[in-house]
Amino acid sequence: MGHWRIALDAMGGDHAPQATLAGAKQALEFWPELHLLLVGDEARLKALLKTYGLEGFLGSRLELVHAASVVEFDDEPKVILKEKKDSSIRVCAQLVREGKADGTVSMGHTGAAMMAGTLVIGKLEGVDRPGLAALLPNGTDKPTVFIEVGASIDSRPEHIAGFAQMAAVYAEQVVGIANPRVGVMSVGEEESKGTEVTLEACALLRQTPGLNFLGNAEGRDIWNGRFDVIACDGYVGNVVLKSAEGMARLVKNGLSSALQRGIMTILGAALVKSSLTRWFKGLDYREHGGLPLLGIKGVSVIGHGSSDATAVRNGIRAALRALDARVVERIQARMSEISSKA
Amino acid sequence: MGHWRIALDAMGGDHAPQATLAGAKQALEFWPELHLLLVGDEARLKALLKTYGLEGFLGSRLELVHAASVVEFDDEPKVILKEKKDSSIRVCAQLVREGKADGTVSMGHTGAAMMAGTLVIGKLEGVDRPGLAALLPNGTDKPTVFIEVGASIDSRPEHIAGFAQMAAVYAEQVVGIANPRVGVMSVGEEESKGTEVTLEACALLRQTPGLNFLGNAEGRDIWNGRFDVIACDGYVGNVVLKSAEGMARLVKNGLSSALQRGIMTILGAALVKSSLTRWFKGLDYREHGGLPLLGIKGVSVIGHGSSDATAVRNGIRAALRALDARVVERIQARMSEISSKA
Repeated sequence: MGHWRIALDAMGGDHAPQATLAGAKQALEFWPELHLLLVGDEARLKALLKTYGLEGFLGSRLELVHAASVVEFDDEPKVILKEKKDSSIRVCAQLVREGKADGTVSMGHTGAAMMAGTLVIGKLEGVDRPGLAALLPNGTDKPTVFIEVGASIDSRPEHIAGFAQMAAVYAEQVVGIANPRVGVMSVGEEESKGTEVTLEACALLRQTPGLNFLGNAEGRDIWNGRFDVIACDGYVGNVVLKSAEGMARLVKNGLSSALQRGIMTILGAALVKSSLTRWFKGLDYREHGGLPLLGIKGVSVIGHGSSDATAVRNGIRAALRALDARVVERIQARMSEISSKA
Repeated sequence: MGHWRIALDAMGGDHAPQATLAGAKQALEFWPELHLLLVGDEARLKALLKTYGLEGFLGSRLELVHAASVVEFDDEPKVILKEKKDSSIRVCAQLVREGKADGTVSMGHTGAAMMAGTLVIGKLEGVDRPGLAALLPNGTDKPTVFIEVGASIDSRPEHIAGFAQMAAVYAEQVVGIANPRVGVMSVGEEESKGTEVTLEACALLRQTPGLNFLGNAEGRDIWNGRFDVIACDGYVGNVVLKSAEGMARLVKNGLSSALQRGIMTILGAALVKSSLTRWFKGLDYREHGGLPLLGIKGVSVIGHGSSDATAVRNGIRAALRALDARVVERIQARMSEISSKA
């Protein structure tokens, strides 16, 4: 990983600042070139540095940046615009905007982080609506890039087309899939099937130069490796992602309790758990660390509220990978290329 | 089960007529009061009756009804209107319309069966759009009724409200859940969250007399038992259901191959498979046999194209349960009650 400066929202998430500080420590140890800006209540963070073994990094690879408030779980995203201009999420975005950080990672309020990315860091030229992407397991060694899952609702066809185009760059540059196969989420394989919005999005993508567009994808295609990128409205994507998480939890709980009632308790349960862990790895927010927000003038990774130290460290890893792959510049170049040919 | 006459689309599904005939035999043996109308190519069916042990039922509890054509997988649903008026799916619906059958079961073309139900059997008074419901596992002993999954796309708010109202009757009368908790699929729990369509659907349901409406549900709530009924647009529901089926397949395949590579192959795999079978039971089309189409003047159960004999038998069971519960009459009564108070 290169020499990058990451603004970490130290106050974001259910277990902040304990999880973020412990994650920061792990990250600084893992990536010797990493420079971290810890954003939050400065006095409180400072008092905790020693506990988390971070004192030694201060002044060299670690900085504290004060932010007076925190966006709470039940706040509206728009609080960052007025009431909580000094929130850690917004200050992180401000640091990226001002070129003081290369990227930001937050385990806090998803909507607020998306709004900060969109309005404070700012949208790339030619991008109307940034989108949050999820990397989901499909039985192959490369995940499916599924966009948009951040609940940017009521997408127009050009938004969905944009999600697909940006995610294709991400799939190629960050995930490492050459000429990714792109689809739009619909209700059948046939070209004629879909809603007004998906049909029009397909029409736009068919005209996109240099895109390996396969047409309609179905729900099952997220999980079978037939597509590398699947794009849809943020309402649909959010529902599908949360449904998948809920189903994974049901299966895990169900298997555990079934096995605990049965014979071979310990051995069987351990076997099942390790297999499940492997297969749900891609669904596990601890593993991927967070979801990239694509279409803004900087790298922003938004993690799960329940993130622990490992998740925070892996969120930082996701940001570093995007920076190493120069994904922002590449998405900008691609979107300019597409709009110039349109 | 009561004395009901079921029109079975003997030609519908990938394994018809073998699977439908074998399923018919099982059903006639299971439910001694059942009367079956086998709809399809009469000469072909007649020649097979002996092979499937059905000869003895002919003339008493079994009838053959001729249908000259079959709706194929790649046909448009609307072929039943002109080119394939004599298709087995349409003839089944016609039998219900004419009062010669009480309900119909088909493992054939879902879209065609929905169209036959809607246009031939006909919509109930006050129902603008019938909806296909799925029963999904949630860790409790009663499944979540999830509607609409039949890809009736671009739903308006009143359609979604109607789906919820009808599914609530189904949940109460057929599934046996008193005062079912009803939600609309959205992107967050808060009342303010959702698309224009879901927000308006919620407004309509909040005003519905006698409905236990809880407001917004999220994707995870399908699987956790917090709601008994969750309603959404048919595009969203179809994507979520197919995604769940795809994920279940990925998990099964993944676990099997992981275990086969590891130690304790046979024992472990058997343990995992039996647990998974139990926990995916509700997702298994063989187990539930088919999905009820709600909002029409008769009982119609639409099954999976890959159905085997067990799935066919269980599809017939689903139809019998709906008939025993008088679900059509009860949905009609409820929809009339709601519209009279609106």
